[in-house]
Amino acid sequence: MPSPDRDDQLHLAAFVTAGPGRPGGWRHPASVSDWRSAAYYRRIGRTLERARFDLVFFADILAVPDRYGGSPDPQLRHGALGSMRLDPTPVLGVLAGATEHLGLAATVSTTYAEPYSVARSFATLDHLSGGRAAWNVVTSFQDAEARNFGRETHIDRASRYLRAEEFVRVTAELWDSWDDDALVLDRDAPLFADPARVHRVDHHGAWFDVQGPLNVARPPQGYPVLIQAGASPAGRDFASRWADVIFCSHASLESARDFYADIKGRAAAHGRDPREIKILPAITPIVADTTEAARAKSAELADLVVPEAGLSTLSYHLDIDLAPFPHDERLPDVDVPGVQGHYQEVRELTEKHGMTLRQLGRRYGGTHEGDFVGTPREVADGLEEWFTGGACDGFTVTAVYQPGAFDEFGEGVVPELQRRGLFRTDYEGTTLRDHLGLARPTAGEWRRRAAREDTP
Amino acid sequence: MPSPDRDDQLHLAAFVTAGPGRPGGWRHPASVSDWRSAAYYRRIGRTLERARFDLVFFADILAVPDRYGGSPDPQLRHGALGSMRLDPTPVLGVLAGATEHLGLAATVSTTYAEPYSVARSFATLDHLSGGRAAWNVVTSFQDAEARNFGRETHIDRASRYLRAEEFVRVTAELWDSWDDDALVLDRDAPLFADPARVHRVDHHGAWFDVQGPLNVARPPQGYPVLIQAGASPAGRDFASRWADVIFCSHASLESARDFYADIKGRAAAHGRDPREIKILPAITPIVADTTEAARAKSAELADLVVPEAGLSTLSYHLDIDLAPFPHDERLPDVDVPGVQGHYQEVRELTEKHGMTLRQLGRRYGGTHEGDFVGTPREVADGLEEWFTGGACDGFTVTAVYQPGAFDEFGEGVVPELQRRGLFRTDYEGTTLRDHLGLARPTAGEWRRRAAREDTP
Ligand SMILES: Cc1cc2nc3c(=O)[nH]c(=O)nc-3n(C[C@H](O)[C@H](O)[C@H](O)COP(=O)(O)O)c2cc1C
Ligand SMILES: Cc1cc2nc3c(=O)[nH]c(=O)nc-3n(C[C@H](O)[C@H](O)[C@H](O)COP(=O)(O)O)c2cc1C
Repeated sequence: MPSPDRDDQLHLAAFVTAGPGRPGGWRHPASVSDWRSAAYYRRIGRTLERARFDLVFFADILAVPDRYGGSPDPQLRHGALGSMRLDPTPVLGVLAGATEHLGLAATVSTTYAEPYSVARSFATLDHLSGGRAAWNVVTSFQDAEARNFGRETHIDRASRYLRAEEFVRVTAELWDSWDDDALVLDRDAPLFADPARVHRVDHHGAWFDVQGPLNVARPPQGYPVLIQAGASPAGRDFASRWADVIFCSHASLESARDFYADIKGRAAAHGRDPREIKILPAITPIVADTTEAARAKSAELADLVVPEAGLSTLSYHLDIDLAPFPHDERLPDVDVPGVQGHYQEVRELTEKHGMTLRQLGRRYGGTHEGDFVGTPREVADGLEEWFTGGACDGFTVTAVYQPGAFDEFGEGVVPELQRRGLFRTDYEGTTLRDHLGLARPTAGEWRRRAAREDTP
Repeated sequence: MPSPDRDDQLHLAAFVTAGPGRPGGWRHPASVSDWRSAAYYRRIGRTLERARFDLVFFADILAVPDRYGGSPDPQLRHGALGSMRLDPTPVLGVLAGATEHLGLAATVSTTYAEPYSVARSFATLDHLSGGRAAWNVVTSFQDAEARNFGRETHIDRASRYLRAEEFVRVTAELWDSWDDDALVLDRDAPLFADPARVHRVDHHGAWFDVQGPLNVARPPQGYPVLIQAGASPAGRDFASRWADVIFCSHASLESARDFYADIKGRAAAHGRDPREIKILPAITPIVADTTEAARAKSAELADLVVPEAGLSTLSYHLDIDLAPFPHDERLPDVDVPGVQGHYQEVRELTEKHGMTLRQLGRRYGGTHEGDFVGTPREVADGLEEWFTGGACDGFTVTAVYQPGAFDEFGEGVVPELQRRGLFRTDYEGTTLRDHLGLARPTAGEWRRRAAREDTP
């Protein structure tokens, strides 16, 4: 029963790490280890396009995490999430050339980049791909990242989001610095671009001074799609004002539903139509021909995870060292400076399911959301329940092993969703905004959005 | 008569701007205006690969230049070199996926980027392409660029090169932070990467503090190929210590030969084998079936250039405002803070050829090097004369109109060079270092190079 807040059909993003993928996944016989080659990403892109995904999304991280025991060794040894990670921007270039419809999202941190560079690289990707680029705006949270960029420790969350706010605003101003009709290309006049329709930005703020104009014409989508995944109140507030798409992570339908209602409410309070934001919680489906086979696969995958692999990842996600805590006990309620969304999930798993640290470690390597283990039909049932139950506008699909798990999802679960009318059978438009049912922002849109900052 | 300083065969780089290309070129009927699409770059890449080019090189610039008359308008109006420029890094991603042999070079400024990010994006491109990445190290020189990155004016040349020196060193250290055999990928042990073979960098310098390790394994080429184009004494010194490839620009064989001897001499003084540096001056060939047709094409191209287009480009290259100087007179000898190489050329054209500013303006839009206008055989004669005359190790070919002029060069001049045994008929190795005949640096190579800094 679709609500007025939601589209009739759900949206699908694929969560990809340009590296070995989920902890333990690289050990699975079905996983492929040439994730350093262009061919690998071309293959993933084509698989996802065949399955009519809205977009592929590349996570990112700017260090080998060393939060667990103060050392990067466990991440490296176990091929954990932060062990090796290619830069997603050139990877998206590969995909811009190798696909025709798929949306292409890369994560870039506002804490360690410059607005002019970021505005330019996403404008470039949007042009190269004919309007399919998206930027996952993150603020980063690890001291290990800070220490690769000249700082001893990471800046505090409040300052990070203030910087992010100004960063995104300047970036949008730069995208607007060329009017839509500025590029004239009249060979006879001659008039390449009309200078009257290209504007300086002359931004002078607390964090940035940028003259402009950008040296790239306005992106085909106006602004590339903006994605956010903040979970703290500051993060949610930022996301509800700026994001077109929100990624999140929930261990249960209930917590997903709470988050969904909260974000849509914040968006409405900021004067946005709640449909302008698509909330896509992360899921890790494990699909097989029979329920038993899927469960066996899930167990097999969990076995491949050394608990330390998951715990060293969880340590940097939460920004606390889990090494000193007894691994056969439950994690006590501690103060967590890192990703609040992950900690909410950890508390839920610890308190409701009684998980020990060791069990958490395995879980952070195997599957995140046990509910989606089964036959294509069973998995589709689960997704339908979340979607119609007001928990999401679609999903961010992660692969237990790359790239095979995307093939299985695309060949098994997607047709089942299509049969139920819950997912497109073909692309209808050409841009990512088309796929997501989002309007193309007109020039100056950033001003309207920025005004929301001052709204309660 | 090949000298001991040189290879038997010459090397070819293609100079491409990810935008409209040379001033006036976009107006030529043979030029294609979809330089915003991935398909365009795919096409250029395949053309160059068919012609067995060593590499394609993307120039870059971080602003719409506003040096001429204090306004970006002439650049925009005329589609001059700085009018619109896509970010080269995602463009190289497209090419990494669409080509198999071609070297892939992007320009990135050490003045407005961070070593961790640059080390990572070139390591990524080197992995994606199987060892074909190259970095054109520039220090930038425009105030317009400074003002897009929070500075009122550009930092002075001496500081720029000090920063560049430290930047390249940290970058190389980061490439070395994984030993060649660090990535083990043993699924059974399990051992993903051997922590004992991955090292922190712990760099603390005047400009940068970087902990490391990089979160990308050592690039297939050890270090991606380093390119440099400094023309000032500081620039030449930097290039002769760090560069594998040097780009330059000369109006005559004589000045090219002087530069060549100077750089090879500096390299030798720093303890390098002069063959380790390939010097590739820029040329702009205009090829046609007959000499007359080539001259007519050259004149036609010059006619397409509004002098203001060339002069507004020359203004930012030289970093002086040429608008107030009378355009029908010769440029007096002035103090030029910008690119010394270009100014040497301008002085030569002004003094030896008596060119007025207006004529210089046209020239900066049409062809740079008139000597290479003619039939394929005539152009090959000219190139052979430079190569055997000790002026270069090959050439950086720019296209008067993109991409057609590359096709003409590839189909006309390249076969002529091949017939003379001056150019490869097929790729022999797989990496760009293979094409260039350069050894793969072993880990720690940066230390040997850095030591050259202290050598006179
Ligand atoms: C599904 C999901 C994916 C995320 N991907 C990244 C990522 O790739 N890089 C990153 O630095 N942070 C990532 N994050 C973290 C968020 O961007 C954000 O920094 C985090 O939720 C902390 O926000 P907070 O400060 O509001 O708690 C992700 C979070 C979620 C839920
Ligand atoms: C053929 C050629 C290509 C160049 N390409 C670029 C470029 O793409 N971006 C840039 O900022 N500078 C470029 N330059 C400028 C040089 O990198 C360098 O900054 C310039 O020669 C000034 O050096 P100097 O300070 O030693 O005089 C180029 C120079 C030449 C000769």
